[in-house]
Amino acid sequence: MERKEFRELTSVEDARTLVDKIRVQPETTILPIEGTAGQILAEDILSGVNVPAFNRSIKDGYAIRAKDSYQASEPEPQELKLIGAIPAGCSDSFFVDDGEAIEISTGAPIPDGADAVIMVENTKQKENSVLIYQPVHIGENIMRAGTDIMKGERILRKNTRMGSREIGVLASIGMDKAPVKRLIVGIISTGSELIKPGEVLGLSKIYDANSYAIAAAIEECGGTPKIYGIVPDEEEVMERTLETAIDECDIVLTSGSTSAGAGDIMYMIIEEKGETLTHGIAIKPGKPVVIGMIDGTPTIGLPGNPTSALSIFNEFVAPIIYNSLGLKPSFKTKVTAVMGTGIRSGGREELFPVGVVRGKVYPADKTSGAITTLSDADGIIEIRAHTEYIEPGSEVEVTMFGNVRSPDLMLIGGQCPGIDLLEEMTGLMFRTLNMGSSAGFTAMSGGTADIACVNMVDADGNYNSSVLEKMNLKDVVLVKGYRREQGLIFSPDNHVYGLEDIVNLQIINRNRGSGTRALLDRELGLLAEVKGTSKSELIKDLKGYNSGSKTHRSACDAVKSGKADVAFGIRAAAEEAGLEFIPVAEDEFDFVIRKDLLEIKEVQMFLETLSSEDFSKRLPQGMYTYELTGSIISSF
Amino acid sequence: MERKEFRELTSVEDARTLVDKIRVQPETTILPIEGTAGQILAEDILSGVNVPAFNRSIKDGYAIRAKDSYQASEPEPQELKLIGAIPAGCSDSFFVDDGEAIEISTGAPIPDGADAVIMVENTKQKENSVLIYQPVHIGENIMRAGTDIMKGERILRKNTRMGSREIGVLASIGMDKAPVKRLIVGIISTGSELIKPGEVLGLSKIYDANSYAIAAAIEECGGTPKIYGIVPDEEEVMERTLETAIDECDIVLTSGSTSAGAGDIMYMIIEEKGETLTHGIAIKPGKPVVIGMIDGTPTIGLPGNPTSALSIFNEFVAPIIYNSLGLKPSFKTKVTAVMGTGIRSGGREELFPVGVVRGKVYPADKTSGAITTLSDADGIIEIRAHTEYIEPGSEVEVTMFGNVRSPDLMLIGGQCPGIDLLEEMTGLMFRTLNMGSSAGFTAMSGGTADIACVNMVDADGNYNSSVLEKMNLKDVVLVKGYRREQGLIFSPDNHVYGLEDIVNLQIINRNRGSGTRALLDRELGLLAEVKGTSKSELIKDLKGYNSGSKTHRSACDAVKSGKADVAFGIRAAAEEAGLEFIPVAEDEFDFVIRKDLLEIKEVQMFLETLSSEDFSKRLPQGMYTYELTGSIISSF
Repeated sequence: MERKEFRELTSVEDARTLVDKIRVQPETTILPIEGTAGQILAEDILSGVNVPAFNRSIKDGYAIRAKDSYQASEPEPQELKLIGAIPAGCSDSFFVDDGEAIEISTGAPIPDGADAVIMVENTKQKENSVLIYQPVHIGENIMRAGTDIMKGERILRKNTRMGSREIGVLASIGMDKAPVKRLIVGIISTGSELIKPGEVLGLSKIYDANSYAIAAAIEECGGTPKIYGIVPDEEEVMERTLETAIDECDIVLTSGSTSAGAGDIMYMIIEEKGETLTHGIAIKPGKPVVIGMIDGTPTIGLPGNPTSALSIFNEFVAPIIYNSLGLKPSFKTKVTAVMGTGIRSGGREELFPVGVVRGKVYPADKTSGAITTLSDADGIIEIRAHTEYIEPGSEVEVTMFGNVRSPDLMLIGGQCPGIDLLEEMTGLMFRTLNMGSSAGFTAMSGGTADIACVNMVDADGNYNSSVLEKMNLKDVVLVKGYRREQGLIFSPDNHVYGLEDIVNLQIINRNRGSGTRALLDRELGLLAEVKGTSKSELIKDLKGYNSGSKTHRSACDAVKSGKADVAFGIRAAAEEAGLEFIPVAEDEFDFVIRKDLLEIKEVQMFLETLSSEDFSKRLPQGMYTYELTGSIISSF
Repeated sequence: MERKEFRELTSVEDARTLVDKIRVQPETTILPIEGTAGQILAEDILSGVNVPAFNRSIKDGYAIRAKDSYQASEPEPQELKLIGAIPAGCSDSFFVDDGEAIEISTGAPIPDGADAVIMVENTKQKENSVLIYQPVHIGENIMRAGTDIMKGERILRKNTRMGSREIGVLASIGMDKAPVKRLIVGIISTGSELIKPGEVLGLSKIYDANSYAIAAAIEECGGTPKIYGIVPDEEEVMERTLETAIDECDIVLTSGSTSAGAGDIMYMIIEEKGETLTHGIAIKPGKPVVIGMIDGTPTIGLPGNPTSALSIFNEFVAPIIYNSLGLKPSFKTKVTAVMGTGIRSGGREELFPVGVVRGKVYPADKTSGAITTLSDADGIIEIRAHTEYIEPGSEVEVTMFGNVRSPDLMLIGGQCPGIDLLEEMTGLMFRTLNMGSSAGFTAMSGGTADIACVNMVDADGNYNSSVLEKMNLKDVVLVKGYRREQGLIFSPDNHVYGLEDIVNLQIINRNRGSGTRALLDRELGLLAEVKGTSKSELIKDLKGYNSGSKTHRSACDAVKSGKADVAFGIRAAAEEAGLEFIPVAEDEFDFVIRKDLLEIKEVQMFLETLSSEDFSKRLPQGMYTYELTGSIISSF
């Protein structure tokens, strides 16, 4: 097989133009109206009935001849003979003659002979007669047949997207089924490294996220997804699956296997069986994209990375679905927001994943190999070619990933169950990036975080404020949090009585930059002093010192599974995991908050909850509030 | 049974406060991730795996020991022994020693011994070795296990609404099922007059729209609807159904039967079996609303009218669902728009159905008895108490009925298949109100319509411009449309050769204010003159002269079904219905357009299409364009 390493990329504009011209013809299927929500109507709907179908009373009262009421007044009511009652839904025949009245309910059919309804409020019923206190005019309180919808009227038009309103309208004209468009989009995930969610994860395997994420995105566009599952990087199997999919679907999507590597088969197959319209779009992450046509079926190869696959789907596949369904692409939720921090770009046109917090945009890109920045990305922004830097404060348009609820506060820093408790108690939605205290400080200086969660100790054993001073951070306040018991976490099989016992064990350390790791370093330094040695000498024997677990929970997991003998972390995590705990020190877990946010509702709620008695009570084991918890203790 | 005609209404504010306190506890159900779109996550999701699960190559290239590359350069490449290849997904064990390299694909696991990957672009493969042209550092092109998601990390939080992004995130950590909240909302439609869509419409019956419209609205809120169908106004049956529903559901809704009429049973049952929290809210259309609690199950009686039922649902039921699911009600789509015309209100607080066209708001209220203003309403505005008039131009907030696409142009006036053709050819979405030419002129003077569709003849046989002059309409233009053959439409069984033959037949006339009716009047007047009699004398014998069909199609329907012998209308409608047609006259179907809209894209498209040759060709039989079609022929 020939390798294609370099090729001419299609410009974004050309790719858009290309995609805009592609149309497929969806079939029509008849569904029960209950099942049509989100579907696209395939035909104009003409009413087959009048609504209402009969002249109908719109009030509770009496059906009479209007002229019998013309002389009626409060002082001199007219008395009419009461000859019966018509409840709603009654289909008996009645006739009202001069001088007669029939009791009638809202919604009941007007009897023959009657030409008006007098409201019950303006009458008084006697045994066999009714007194009329006011005149009514001909037609009063009568809704004529067809007033609302006339038989033959077009009440819904083709290409309407069905919702509660539309379903109600169909029901009201008696339709229990409706013709909707069925545009089937097949999805093939390619790659020998993929396995199906739910299966056991072997070494070298990753779960197939694209089949499911893209299926849901297809539904959001009004299409019908058909998942073909995972196909290994073998030409024959892929070819066979592709043939079946092309036979059964209106559009076929593949994901993965489009880079110029050993698995570059999909492009070859399209090239061989059909026509390649473009291979590679000059937009990051569009380089591996291939758009082709096989037997009149658009066949599109998406990148393997889920965030990239969804971005490219939104940009270059959704328009084909919308256009083919006769929809306007106005269903894409776009919001205008302001850059909360600067974003650097490589100069190439780029679909850049971002988070949106209270109308501010932050980069949500981890590394080019990342699989699920997806969980931190609320949408994408398009960065134009030759843009090297987007300034903080500039306005950008974000295309949201569906009906996404943006978080209320962005927290970056150390991980702690206390933060989860704050989130639960405030009812706010946090985006919490557990990157360690150092990253929290950095994010404050870059303006990325609203709140940094920090537990960073210095050489003298002081927490947080000394770091703020050293970093010369401005326009922030330090809010007192709580203290936490930190110590050794191990399984009951091991005999650990203090820090000196761990030097020959396998440890799972926390990530560099985390306050807990810094605390362990400090304690090891103190121990070395006592032992008359150096810290570096001490950690030589400490296996696993270079490991870096991002959360307390994952550190405990490593101990539980036997991968490590011991971890250093908070008591709460040890207890949750059912592991032994020996306290070594207490840390101080505080919050750095941007000054300009102190007055906003979300931060106010955060601080109120933090300082509440209820929060103090509900903190997990081994965590304790101070008198000053929730107060600003210094301002920078 | 006692009648309750008057009662104290609850203020809107009190009703909101009441509703805001109601919570139910939804159950958790486990669904396959494919089926969770739109559902609400019941638990925090912690990752059970590292993503990636292994150290992974992020490039196609060669896994090596970094130090073997330190001396490499373009002129002096380093040669390493090629000992194998690791494709993605490969789970064999490999070991790279000093001086060795293994070919590796993107996504494949890094072999033991190797600590870097050099990109294929910077190498050259020979038979049993590979040349390295650039140095790489330790860790280069390697994504470490857990970089993206660390085992134990919370990746989705409770109460998240599932969409394509969330489904993708779950799949990527290997979950094929997810715990979601299941809040079951039962719907009982009450009223002996109701029948199920799909059944034959008997006299006095109307189709049950609420069960379906409200079920869809419940789904839009994240709830699970359960339809109990139609229950007649009989206390025993209703009581039994309500008992079952309360037993099976978290919330029970009923619609209809809550007015103070003969069917006022639901309120009685709630009163008897539980507690009435409010009966009647001081908001139009909330008067019949009853909110009660039976055995801890909120039981709410909605109005019978579907628009009212949906409005009240949005206002007072949706919050209970949102709160119980832990959602913020920010899912309601609210848009700020500008009143396109004034709206009068009775001074009572009101949820007023409106249409939204290009950001302008118009009333969509027909009559209080109307069932489906629903098809013309895009949302509702809330009119505060004591507001008598909302001025055109004032800003209002519209709560949209779901994901509604607003129409591009509002057309009011005469009905014609030529308009449908224009809509199809422009690709625009029209809201077309077939109310007759007179209503079209009136709508132009009131500013409600963008375009009036008119075919109104005066006594001298002149069309449209004379009416504009008489009405003294300003700031509009008259655009030439096309002419249409109008005549007698009848079934082949009848012998009709001209207008004089119809005087003893049963006619189906068009609605008052329609141009076609005016044309018939004119022709009858001319005939009377010829016959030496008066028009009023002539129509005395014309049975059905007072009837008023709103569309050409429904007039033809009446003839086809034998309800009328003859209709007066356009040839196109007669031919579509397969009826006989004798031409009597031609009318002129023109368009009145607001001057300030002439430059907008939608009107430009309208005019371009109207004047196109293609439109002329595609006009139905009996309709002909002029030289001037699509041109402005006069300005007012």
